[in-house]
Amino acid sequence: MTHLKTSVVLDFLRENQGHYISGEEISRKLKVSRSAVWKEMQYLRDLGYVIEAQPHMGYRLSSIPDKMFADEIAYGLKTKFIGKKIFSYDTLDSTNDAAFKLGEQGMEEGVCVFAESQKKGRGRLGREWVSPKSKNLILSMLLRPSLPPTEASKITLAAAVSVIQAVRKTTGKTLGVKWPNDIVCGHKKVGGILTEMSAEVDRVNFVVVGIGLNINSVSKELPKGSTSLKEIAGHEVSRISFARDLLEQLERDFLLLKKGHFETLAKEWEDFSVVSGRRVAARVSGRKIEGEALGIDKDGALWIRKDDGLQERITAGDVECQWK
Amino acid sequence: MTHLKTSVVLDFLRENQGHYISGEEISRKLKVSRSAVWKEMQYLRDLGYVIEAQPHMGYRLSSIPDKMFADEIAYGLKTKFIGKKIFSYDTLDSTNDAAFKLGEQGMEEGVCVFAESQKKGRGRLGREWVSPKSKNLILSMLLRPSLPPTEASKITLAAAVSVIQAVRKTTGKTLGVKWPNDIVCGHKKVGGILTEMSAEVDRVNFVVVGIGLNINSVSKELPKGSTSLKEIAGHEVSRISFARDLLEQLERDFLLLKKGHFETLAKEWEDFSVVSGRRVAARVSGRKIEGEALGIDKDGALWIRKDDGLQERITAGDVECQWK
Repeated sequence: MTHLKTSVVLDFLRENQGHYISGEEISRKLKVSRSAVWKEMQYLRDLGYVIEAQPHMGYRLSSIPDKMFADEIAYGLKTKFIGKKIFSYDTLDSTNDAAFKLGEQGMEEGVCVFAESQKKGRGRLGREWVSPKSKNLILSMLLRPSLPPTEASKITLAAAVSVIQAVRKTTGKTLGVKWPNDIVCGHKKVGGILTEMSAEVDRVNFVVVGIGLNINSVSKELPKGSTSLKEIAGHEVSRISFARDLLEQLERDFLLLKKGHFETLAKEWEDFSVVSGRRVAARVSGRKIEGEALGIDKDGALWIRKDDGLQERITAGDVECQWK
Repeated sequence: MTHLKTSVVLDFLRENQGHYISGEEISRKLKVSRSAVWKEMQYLRDLGYVIEAQPHMGYRLSSIPDKMFADEIAYGLKTKFIGKKIFSYDTLDSTNDAAFKLGEQGMEEGVCVFAESQKKGRGRLGREWVSPKSKNLILSMLLRPSLPPTEASKITLAAAVSVIQAVRKTTGKTLGVKWPNDIVCGHKKVGGILTEMSAEVDRVNFVVVGIGLNINSVSKELPKGSTSLKEIAGHEVSRISFARDLLEQLERDFLLLKKGHFETLAKEWEDFSVVSGRRVAARVSGRKIEGEALGIDKDGALWIRKDDGLQERITAGDVECQWK
């Protein structure tokens, strides 16, 4: 577990990025001793910050580490509640489990948990989620929506829209979504969303939205049939800047959901959907349903027109597209 | 927290209930020292067991304490999985929270948590559940059903049937159920069921069923409009023996549910329902729906025929019967 302690020295260096500032000036303006300034520089360098030091000129921040430090993600983040509190870890068993515990402890809506790697990362239905260390995005977010459990799937769909919009902003590329929770590029998987909840029968206590997205990994490091933003965009992507964009987009979309505008999100979702209008095969508790995917309804369930003309509503299970 | 350690001496006394057994015989048969036997008698007496001792005759168990000790409930319990592991506590914040933690820890299905009192007992929708200490039943049970969250309400309905059947066996009286989770006698509340779950959008991880039932409390100790089995039956009810009957009935009903026979339970539920066929007023997220309650459907939702002839399906909220 690596936490970056809130560092006023770092804030000061950031504000003067590109310029040298003397140790004396830092010491005077922040009212700390010269030796405290020196110790802080060492601490920041140990974390991976590149701080140049020149005699008679002072210190200059020349690069920040490629680490999902809470403090870095929060720096310049323009949100009201998503990510107002961020916990970041080097390794966790599961960010969803960690966020779930925060939910049980009564932590407020919008708290985010990031990790560089997970020991027991999970996908849907208890499947494993594999993500090479410090390459990708692993995020779980606590929400407290006023929804019955039957409508929790709306949150997965909203999060998928947020991910695709944030990726578009960062890379200019438009990914697809494969019902219910896969983020894809053509046939290849780029990410997934795992929504879990603590609920009464007719009321959600809280929801944890887990998002795993391949950012700077390459195919050979990933499970078969996967790709990453780096491969799609043709260049590395700043994980921190992407995380900020994503949190801002998530806030926009969850506010829409809270205000009852799910149909706006559903329309965006349909635009990104790789299943709608395609021939699909769905597996629902051992049964196979084949036909044309028609789209999602107001609760986020998928409708399939079967070959016998009957329409069936799917709320669980897996869907495979039949590509021509 | 009071746990009864598993006591071979107690088992020996129980097997010989009504007869004196000499300390020497106990010591010889159980292969423990005379002083260990004496210490064990003191331990059991401290817990409230009445053990008579007569010179030249030995010890005799003449009564057991009115406490929900795990060991007492388990003694003679005829179940396969419900209550094969029981935790009992003097005081807990909430038995549902304790059972939820056991669920997160991967504990097996059927684990039961009993408490004499709760500091933060909850009813549905975050309401308070009040139960005077050591008078009533407070039980939470861990289940791992293969259900989507949309069908979790079936578990509440099944548990209501179990409670009413167990009460009938113990007292000969038939209580009623007021949708979705109140156990009632006429207009008065006798108990309630709080079903909570950890779930993905389309799969339940585990369910905790909390049951609170007024057994030996009297009205003046209880919230307004409540009564107890003691008041209904006209005599005290053995809480331990009732708990055993309840666990056995719960197992029967959950096996029915697991085997897909919800309609059998739904039929029993309808027989006990005080709302079906009656004029009701339901409050659903601020809206009031008045009309005749028709009954529950295959997912446990309540149907109401409104005054304009339209039928509405209710999955959440509160229902008040309009008594004539």
